[in-house]
Amino acid sequence: MSRHLRIVLVHPPRESDASLRAAALQAGLTEAGYELVASLPADLHLPERIAQLQPDMIIVDAESDARDVLEHIVVATRDERRPIVMFTDDDKTSSMEAALEAGVSAYIVAGLQPERIKPVLNVALARFRKEQKLLHELADTKHKLAERKVIDRAKGVLMARHGISEDQAYQRLRTMAMNKNLKLAEVAQRLLDVEDLLG
Amino acid sequence: MSRHLRIVLVHPPRESDASLRAAALQAGLTEAGYELVASLPADLHLPERIAQLQPDMIIVDAESDARDVLEHIVVATRDERRPIVMFTDDDKTSSMEAALEAGVSAYIVAGLQPERIKPVLNVALARFRKEQKLLHELADTKHKLAERKVIDRAKGVLMARHGISEDQAYQRLRTMAMNKNLKLAEVAQRLLDVEDLLG
Repeated sequence: MSRHLRIVLVHPPRESDASLRAAALQAGLTEAGYELVASLPADLHLPERIAQLQPDMIIVDAESDARDVLEHIVVATRDERRPIVMFTDDDKTSSMEAALEAGVSAYIVAGLQPERIKPVLNVALARFRKEQKLLHELADTKHKLAERKVIDRAKGVLMARHGISEDQAYQRLRTMAMNKNLKLAEVAQRLLDVEDLLG
Repeated sequence: MSRHLRIVLVHPPRESDASLRAAALQAGLTEAGYELVASLPADLHLPERIAQLQPDMIIVDAESDARDVLEHIVVATRDERRPIVMFTDDDKTSSMEAALEAGVSAYIVAGLQPERIKPVLNVALARFRKEQKLLHELADTKHKLAERKVIDRAKGVLMARHGISEDQAYQRLRTMAMNKNLKLAEVAQRLLDVEDLLG
């Protein structure tokens, strides 16, 4: 498991990060061998700061107002997902569901004991990786399905227009793709675009 | 959120479920308003007992040997996934990763305080539902891709054999499906099976 994970701590804008909770969190992080690179308020500057710092993980210490902080975190991780661990005392089901929906890897209610921090972070990291794998597999399968539709429509056009077999239509698409140094789906899409233009 | 969630507690076969840990867990469950329907050892009878009891959630209290218990849980939830919450003192990365891989919704190290049990269960339940949704979407997309391949191959066969357009081939498949009261993909598969037989 990664040592020296670079961590950014995010706290509500009006709360001081010198609170007792934050002190306990920092103690736990240091003890676990993680590197705390910054402690930031959840405000409009957050996305920019996160983009600059490129942390391996974001820890949110939100005490009672988990949802306010969450909105800024969502914006800050929209383009590049990162493992997010949320320590809070907010046990409202709606807050918790909103956090999971927003991609939070661990939502820990009333669990801020320094000795628990390391296993919580490890579980969150493993869970984040597992979910990323699943999301990538889903995106990949959807992409294949979309490509397949385009390629098969293009084959159909060639078969009908030239009275050739499916294999021949496929070979023709392949040759066009190789000649133009394009992917099969790209050539197929161009062919369909032209077909649309010509009616 | 569901009240009266029916819960099965699973413990290692050699540990008594009258241990201090189990007592703390039961106290937390009762306080949170959950119904503990059974406390079972992780042995070969577990799958059958779980199938009989149909619990809404499985809580594993594994103390040190998380992996041994896990094997039995995996078998018991293979056919029907259920939310699984694991309380353990086993903080080995390999045990934790094996648990997540096996579909455990929450892996809680050293976190067995009665007042934390309710939020932990709520988070685990929401996470289980979210992951099930994602897994169903993935299975559904893969299925569509597989059906698409079969249907398009069948269209290609009809187009080549009868010198018809893609639209005409599609209409022919649709008519066959309606006449035989089958799904389009099923008719397409039969057509390909026959094609294979005829060479």
